[in-house]
Amino acid sequence: MNASEPVKPLIEVLQGNVRPVPPVWLMRQAGRYLPEYRALRKRAGGFLELCFRPELASEATLQPVRRFGFDAAILFSDILVVAHALGQRVEFEEGEGPRLEPVSTLAEIERLQAEVDQDVLLPVYETIRLVKSVLPPDVALIGFCGAPWTVATYMVAGRGVEGQVPARRFALEDPQSFGKLIDRLVKSSIEYLVRQFRAGVDAVQIFDTWAGVLAADEFQRWCIDPTNSICRGVRARCPNARIIGFPRGVGTALPRYVEQVPVDAVSLDWTIDREFARAQIPARVAIQGNLDPVALLAGGPMLDQKVDRVLKGFAGRPFIFNLGHGILPDTPIEHVERMLQCIRGSGRT
Amino acid sequence: MNASEPVKPLIEVLQGNVRPVPPVWLMRQAGRYLPEYRALRKRAGGFLELCFRPELASEATLQPVRRFGFDAAILFSDILVVAHALGQRVEFEEGEGPRLEPVSTLAEIERLQAEVDQDVLLPVYETIRLVKSVLPPDVALIGFCGAPWTVATYMVAGRGVEGQVPARRFALEDPQSFGKLIDRLVKSSIEYLVRQFRAGVDAVQIFDTWAGVLAADEFQRWCIDPTNSICRGVRARCPNARIIGFPRGVGTALPRYVEQVPVDAVSLDWTIDREFARAQIPARVAIQGNLDPVALLAGGPMLDQKVDRVLKGFAGRPFIFNLGHGILPDTPIEHVERMLQCIRGSGRT
Repeated sequence: MNASEPVKPLIEVLQGNVRPVPPVWLMRQAGRYLPEYRALRKRAGGFLELCFRPELASEATLQPVRRFGFDAAILFSDILVVAHALGQRVEFEEGEGPRLEPVSTLAEIERLQAEVDQDVLLPVYETIRLVKSVLPPDVALIGFCGAPWTVATYMVAGRGVEGQVPARRFALEDPQSFGKLIDRLVKSSIEYLVRQFRAGVDAVQIFDTWAGVLAADEFQRWCIDPTNSICRGVRARCPNARIIGFPRGVGTALPRYVEQVPVDAVSLDWTIDREFARAQIPARVAIQGNLDPVALLAGGPMLDQKVDRVLKGFAGRPFIFNLGHGILPDTPIEHVERMLQCIRGSGRT
Repeated sequence: MNASEPVKPLIEVLQGNVRPVPPVWLMRQAGRYLPEYRALRKRAGGFLELCFRPELASEATLQPVRRFGFDAAILFSDILVVAHALGQRVEFEEGEGPRLEPVSTLAEIERLQAEVDQDVLLPVYETIRLVKSVLPPDVALIGFCGAPWTVATYMVAGRGVEGQVPARRFALEDPQSFGKLIDRLVKSSIEYLVRQFRAGVDAVQIFDTWAGVLAADEFQRWCIDPTNSICRGVRARCPNARIIGFPRGVGTALPRYVEQVPVDAVSLDWTIDREFARAQIPARVAIQGNLDPVALLAGGPMLDQKVDRVLKGFAGRPFIFNLGHGILPDTPIEHVERMLQCIRGSGRT
């Protein structure tokens, strides 16, 4: 290691090392549970404005690190900026989630841009540079994108709907056209992640939030294969790229995912049986996760026990402590503080 | 076998026999995709009125058997009639799903009745008797209840909400009080299922629609243990009771479920890896499932392939063909007909 580069615990784990105290960050750690985030959001006006104004997005990225001393900052942005940069209309209504003009035919797919408009995404890279310039040297900066399947589910339905049925239907009725949308997303995501690395992120996470609704038959084609292509495409241009995969709801397909997708770490949702995961995930792949976000919401002595079970469940493995899904907006700040005491205390006593 | 009793293929499979052509029925087969159901529903007025008027509920139960020649009829009712019979206010608004007056404290739980009011449920047993009197002798009649966890998620939240967070929170914050609600539901469900058997059902299914949102740690306590208690409680009084378990979203907990819950068959959702299922489910447990409901919705040549994969995936095992979840309301009738041709044709050629 270059002596001038300080150790980032999260990157060490992604390189296959075991840390006595696991590094910790939380999905959606920059978010509504923080009063300082709510104030910033108010100042920005819309959600996309917050994503695309580097001085505000960098502030949102840094807030949770400043408050809690997390081992990683995650770029404040949204997986749907890629849809937006492909020319689809994307809006976020307060408390409503995203609204997109649905893309549901081959003609509509072909009317999108062939590749993302990088000009639209320049503010994201600028945010990365701003964060990087002030982030403590032992804190990793994580970039991200949505997995093609998950981004496509929103592009097709125009919003999140139960079971994401419209995209599942499209993929079954016309896999060739749907495959063209996925291909565009694969290509765009590679370019997007490469530029994130060049702007300064230390690692990226690929969020496949809706992987769990795919039928077993379809999981290979729409989750594993495209994510695999992204990993290979990014590594072809950034050979040392560190990549975390998050196939939420992967369930019984976990062994296939870790065998076929060359991620440095797999992030596990809260429902995964930890014994099964330990047995099925090869030692070369680090594990991230998997505290139930509702346990963090609920707090109390039960929270200490649940944190302890996660720590014990993955002891001795390269491991990053995280939630099994994003932090819930009503989570009290003191519960996050208590969780950190449990994690960092346990390794130090 | 008593010579006067004709063979019911579905029951044969539940007894561990392999049928060359698997018996088939569909979850929610009595439902909105059928024009005759929509007409009946209109005639009944409200949904609960339809459930509680035996002459209408029996007609709804029989409609899909008459039209498609399914191997089983499933009692037309709803899992929330148990909450209703415990004294909770339950309403169904058109296209909105159930609305209940939420139960979220120990005091509110204790204000419920200790056991279900059997008078409220008498029309259900009457429906069973009516159906039984006219059902072809080779067609099985399936009764059902919701698993305690799933019924409790609705009782606590007052409706279906994303991830059923309110019940998960209650169960973590105050497991003792939540356990009292579960205990009431276990006791009520045993009595309810025993009476269904006495009225004439040939088998029952326990629907745990929301099993998949439980953290791995909690799955044992809120899914496996209560379902186990119901199976044992019912069998203590009906020794030959045939029971199908449906832990939707069970994922990596499937091996534990089939090891610990003494069901005759386990119903698999559409996301379960079939190789994993074959390897993990002991031969004594029959398999039911697991066609993606969206494949049935979409139709076309792809449907034939998907049906074929299900048949091949579970060939040689005691197997009941079904969907991996309820049939979607927009499903065309011709797709159901085509599916049946594929299933019944394949075994006969």
